[in-house]
Amino acid sequence: MNKQEMSAEILAAKKRSGASWAALAEAVGAHEVWVASCCYGENSMPEPYASKLCTALKLTSEVKDALVEYPVKGQSLGQLVPTDPLVYRFYEILQVYGLTLKDVIQEKFGDGIMSAIDFTMDVQKQEDPKGDRVVVTMSGKFLPYKKW
Amino acid sequence: MNKQEMSAEILAAKKRSGASWAALAEAVGAHEVWVASCCYGENSMPEPYASKLCTALKLTSEVKDALVEYPVKGQSLGQLVPTDPLVYRFYEILQVYGLTLKDVIQEKFGDGIMSAIDFTMDVQKQEDPKGDRVVVTMSGKFLPYKKW
Amino acid sequence: MNKQEMSAEILAAKKRSGASWAALAEAVGAHEVWVASCCYGENSMPEPYASKLCTALKLTSEVKDALVEYPVKGQSLGQLVPTDPLVYRFYEILQVYGLTLKDVIQEKFGDGIMSAIDFTMDVQKQEDPKGDRVVVTMSGKFLPYKKW
Amino acid sequence: MNKQEMSAEILAAKKRSGASWAALAEAVGAHEVWVASCCYGENSMPEPYASKLCTALKLTSEVKDALVEYPVKGQSLGQLVPTDPLVYRFYEILQVYGLTLKDVIQEKFGDGIMSAIDFTMDVQKQEDPKGDRVVVTMSGKFLPYKKW
Amino acid sequence: MNKQEMSAEILAAKKRSGASWAALAEAVGAHEVWVASCCYGENSMPEPYASKLCTALKLTSEVKDALVEYPVKGQSLGQLVPTDPLVYRFYEILQVYGLTLKDVIQEKFGDGIMSAIDFTMDVQKQEDPKGDRVVVTMSGKFLPYKKW
Amino acid sequence: MNKQEMSAEILAAKKRSGASWAALAEAVGAHEVWVASCCYGENSMPEPYASKLCTALKLTSEVKDALVEYPVKGQSLGQLVPTDPLVYRFYEILQVYGLTLKDVIQEKFGDGIMSAIDFTMDVQKQEDPKGDRVVVTMSGKFLPYKKW
Amino acid sequence: MNKQEMSAEILAAKKRSGASWAALAEAVGAHEVWVASCCYGENSMPEPYASKLCTALKLTSEVKDALVEYPVKGQSLGQLVPTDPLVYRFYEILQVYGLTLKDVIQEKFGDGIMSAIDFTMDVQKQEDPKGDRVVVTMSGKFLPYKKW
Amino acid sequence: MNKQEMSAEILAAKKRSGASWAALAEAVGAHEVWVASCCYGENSMPEPYASKLCTALKLTSEVKDALVEYPVKGQSLGQLVPTDPLVYRFYEILQVYGLTLKDVIQEKFGDGIMSAIDFTMDVQKQEDPKGDRVVVTMSGKFLPYKKW
Amino acid sequence: MNKQEMSAEILAAKKRSGASWAALAEAVGAHEVWVASCCYGENSMPEPYASKLCTALKLTSEVKDALVEYPVKGQSLGQLVPTDPLVYRFYEILQVYGLTLKDVIQEKFGDGIMSAIDFTMDVQKQEDPKGDRVVVTMSGKFLPYKKW
Amino acid sequence: MNKQEMSAEILAAKKRSGASWAALAEAVGAHEVWVASCCYGENSMPEPYASKLCTALKLTSEVKDALVEYPVKGQSLGQLVPTDPLVYRFYEILQVYGLTLKDVIQEKFGDGIMSAIDFTMDVQKQEDPKGDRVVVTMSGKFLPYKKW
Repeated sequence: MNKQEMSAEILAAKKRSGASWAALAEAVGAHEVWVASCCYGENSMPEPYASKLCTALKLTSEVKDALVEYPVKGQSLGQLVPTDPLVYRFYEILQVYGLTLKDVIQEKFGDGIMSAIDFTMDVQKQEDPKGDRVVVTMSGKFLPYKKW
Repeated sequence: MNKQEMSAEILAAKKRSGASWAALAEAVGAHEVWVASCCYGENSMPEPYASKLCTALKLTSEVKDALVEYPVKGQSLGQLVPTDPLVYRFYEILQVYGLTLKDVIQEKFGDGIMSAIDFTMDVQKQEDPKGDRVVVTMSGKFLPYKKW
Repeated sequence: MNKQEMSAEILAAKKRSGASWAALAEAVGAHEVWVASCCYGENSMPEPYASKLCTALKLTSEVKDALVEYPVKGQSLGQLVPTDPLVYRFYEILQVYGLTLKDVIQEKFGDGIMSAIDFTMDVQKQEDPKGDRVVVTMSGKFLPYKKW
Repeated sequence: MNKQEMSAEILAAKKRSGASWAALAEAVGAHEVWVASCCYGENSMPEPYASKLCTALKLTSEVKDALVEYPVKGQSLGQLVPTDPLVYRFYEILQVYGLTLKDVIQEKFGDGIMSAIDFTMDVQKQEDPKGDRVVVTMSGKFLPYKKW
Repeated sequence: MNKQEMSAEILAAKKRSGASWAALAEAVGAHEVWVASCCYGENSMPEPYASKLCTALKLTSEVKDALVEYPVKGQSLGQLVPTDPLVYRFYEILQVYGLTLKDVIQEKFGDGIMSAIDFTMDVQKQEDPKGDRVVVTMSGKFLPYKKW
Repeated sequence: MNKQEMSAEILAAKKRSGASWAALAEAVGAHEVWVASCCYGENSMPEPYASKLCTALKLTSEVKDALVEYPVKGQSLGQLVPTDPLVYRFYEILQVYGLTLKDVIQEKFGDGIMSAIDFTMDVQKQEDPKGDRVVVTMSGKFLPYKKW
Repeated sequence: MNKQEMSAEILAAKKRSGASWAALAEAVGAHEVWVASCCYGENSMPEPYASKLCTALKLTSEVKDALVEYPVKGQSLGQLVPTDPLVYRFYEILQVYGLTLKDVIQEKFGDGIMSAIDFTMDVQKQEDPKGDRVVVTMSGKFLPYKKW
Repeated sequence: MNKQEMSAEILAAKKRSGASWAALAEAVGAHEVWVASCCYGENSMPEPYASKLCTALKLTSEVKDALVEYPVKGQSLGQLVPTDPLVYRFYEILQVYGLTLKDVIQEKFGDGIMSAIDFTMDVQKQEDPKGDRVVVTMSGKFLPYKKW
Repeated sequence: MNKQEMSAEILAAKKRSGASWAALAEAVGAHEVWVASCCYGENSMPEPYASKLCTALKLTSEVKDALVEYPVKGQSLGQLVPTDPLVYRFYEILQVYGLTLKDVIQEKFGDGIMSAIDFTMDVQKQEDPKGDRVVVTMSGKFLPYKKW
Repeated sequence: MNKQEMSAEILAAKKRSGASWAALAEAVGAHEVWVASCCYGENSMPEPYASKLCTALKLTSEVKDALVEYPVKGQSLGQLVPTDPLVYRFYEILQVYGLTLKDVIQEKFGDGIMSAIDFTMDVQKQEDPKGDRVVVTMSGKFLPYKKW
């Protein structure tokens, strides 16, 4: 069972069960964004978590094995420039604020990057009378360039 | 004076003055990320802010006029897939977590998108003995798809 | 059932029934362009509308469930530059009038964009002895750029 | 003087004069969208109109000659997929509603296309307490495919 | 039955029957280039013609229905730059003579285009002792740009 | 003097003189399409023709020398997919009729191609009460594939 | 049977039989490079040759029919820039020596091209104590550009 | 002086002198294709050869120094798919015969490639009453894949 | 059995057996990187090695035959710019250090390249209290450019 | 002074001085690959090193300032797929061995990547009677994917 088939099975089971990502995350004992990214085949989910998820969603051990596998990442989107409007907005932020981000981060930290590996992400709903807001928080370890 | 020339002049003046983006933001009365994005030519900076910035950095009124202009955005990066490692990491996050973000946001809010226009962004340094962390917070208004 | 299979089933049923988009829109209680876009898998159609559509076209509840799903959008065209002559003409309008549109809109409204989310579109046939005309009207909420 | 230089001169003169596209359109005796598209070098402006425009903006006869020239079109945007958020939204509409437009138009008119040559476009501001709306109206002659 | 399947069936039947495009065109009562383009799924063939073609080639009514459908065009080639040498030569003509064609046509007709919709094409064999020549004649209605 | 500079000088001189391509072709003793293609830098114009052209347009011997040079072809368009509407229509014909052309030509001639080197092209205006027509005739030597 | 299926069948039969391209070429009475190119579906192989090949490799008449078909060429590689190291080296030669080839050929022959249609190619092994050498010889008819 | 400026100077001097590549090759004591490739900036020409060339063409020592420099190769063509017809024919050969070449070479030599570094190329004119032929001979060392 | 099917079978068998690449390399008598590259279908594995591998993993002779075949290389990745973060880092190194590598190698060796054919690669784990390090060593024969 | 101008000045000064990268590295007190990468504008060189380099090569303080600047990386190559043969070989290694590297590294280290930031590289010449070898050693910190 490859990651794509696994993803289809999990999403179908999730729909049948009616569970939200938050509920599944609690069952698994991890963060909902990370759990969802594992289910989309973009992160490997280690054994104990994978077992709990498969129990919660009544999935076979084949699905569990596929969850544990190390994925070839970046396959789920499958496009250089995304066409889906929600996903595109994040690409637009990159196009518009890319150099700004680089400069502000490097001014605060020195020459280096924000890791996308030692990395966590959170999504919150912030209620607002003028329209609720999506708040996305990314946290990545700063990695300084090495002199050698 | 076009946005590219304006950007070069401001960055040179900023370097000469030794001021940080935080200091300039305080002088202008706005957020450092927004101020930097205006200086990179990716946002329009309205008159009173632009005047304060030009006073702080001893820049001509030509620069101020260029700051006020509405920009054609997305020109500063100039590449479909960014090559700079810091900027690329945000593209990688998009490739790896794009569908996850879409699903988690839409589960919490319904069918719609996070606006990249009614949008703010913040960058903080979080000290950590295992290595300081870059914390980027994005906040965008949720826009539901319209039925008609 | 994914959106592509759903789309094929609906279009086949529509052909068998002989109903026009206008007739289906009336049956559903919504606009024909929006109804068609849901049937092409590019918009989510909420329950009551989806049920009415499936009743009108004698489709299964699987089709109805697929209609309700939130789509990954921008998949139906599947090309960066469209080759179909009718669709290409809209791309040509973008190439030829893109900056004009930007400037005229921003002169009237200030710095910002026309939303493609809080958005409706209408297509009318305007009879004309020199040749009938296609009249496409797009209406999108103006979103001003945010200062922060 | 090529179209790019012409465009820069006209836009600078327009800014100095403080005239809007609507005011210039009135001076010239044509529609503001068409006038703006000529000034961006994407349409040819015949003599009497070009003379009036150059008089209104105090521009040289070199600019007038350049306005009259037949342009190589589609050069002003210069990108396959536009990065500017306002312009991109129209590309997004094409990606999301392309096949819908094709089907609704062809159902009403038969097999054929909407001309982008025998074509006019209008932009209006529609005031709305929930947020003003941009209304773009495109009108193109229907051209049926020829059997031979 | 989609256009691709239809195309495969017609080409196989044509091969079995041994009929040339010219013979089929006579049976159908239309031009061989247009008939062939319908069979390649790039033009819609109205009922009476489609019936005659299917009778001539002993094809089912499913094929006839597929012939009548309005196609999404530009799918048969499937490449931005064609690799087949015969097809590429026409792309080369475009690369080498594109601006020449534009200038010569616009000098004779004024600012506008040659329609590819109100369009016919003919292919003749011209015998020549130095080597036979392919003569391709394209005829398209001139469409002048509209001032508004 | 390179081909691009040569082209600019010739086109400016042609405009000053008011001569049409047809008039220049007569002065040179060759076909207007070929003459125009040489002036756009896409064909080499041998000495006697080049001298006549430069005399007719009062151009320097530097221009004449540049006309005689063998060009690196396909540079004048400079885009994989042309954006200019007139030029694009020929690309559209290629996308829509490419395989049709291949099949009709090969049915008449056998396996081979139409040469784009031993090639001539003509453009005529055909008056028509329903709208004048552009008639483009291409004639290329048939080259059969070689067996060896 | 399409060219791709044909190719797979022939290559499997060739492997079973243990025959080399040279041996098959002798059986067919043609050059090994041309025979191989037909078997890869990139050239049409006329009847008598195709029959001999199918007899030699014990293949069905369906394969023979597919060999006779005129192919849509340039499909076997399927990439703009080849990734296979052996094939890439020929692309590298083109990148590095393209303009050199053009200039040296045109200095010897005048303005024109080397035909890739009236064309033969040969591959020899030249033994050499410092390492055997691959010797590829291409021979194409020179085609001069036509003046008209 | 970079390679591009060097190339322009050498080609201009060669034109003034009227010398052919063959004559220059004799003056330098090397093969005309290699000499031309050095002059196009795609190969480095060691000192004694470069001095002879500059003496023959009366060029400065700056040109000589530029000839000796190691080039960044593949810059002279500047396109992924060449548009010039002569250069394109070699790309077409690659598209049509790429896999054939791979198979025939590997059948004769085993698994490996033909070097494009330990490589020579020759161009000859072969007179032929049916039309002269261009004969291009490439010779590259065979490099077997290494097992380790 | 093609290389892709072969690869899937070997990776499944490897997983079932629990053997590491190092263990398989020992069983086969070759280096683990080379063994893995053969199993990914990117190198041909000669008979004796292939037999040993298939014995160790209890695979059929069909798999063995597929291992021996000469592959069309560069198919396993299937992307111009890799999206997987681990693979991308090597692409980033190429983007950031490409010209540096070229200059440092050519300064030490003269004008030429490092072979990717007569090439070996090794991966080691170097334990380090600040975080273990991946050490990749590439060794390729230097090939000097040939003068001719 | 931007990084590109800086790079040109340093490379010219290095050539005049006759110093090798190894000699400059010794003068600076760092590794030659890192020093070269700074001079190509792909790494920032901190003050004390930059001063020593500028003293060694007699360069102005403007060059020194440019060396200290944090670069936008990945600009020096400027191509998605490099054309220079030496640089291309590293791209080929990535295409051929990409998945192999991923699997071998992850088998030894677990799910994660090799850092290209906390990274060093070394180039050595290994003499060999069968032809000297280029030995490139890359060392990057292993970064495990984070669970959260």
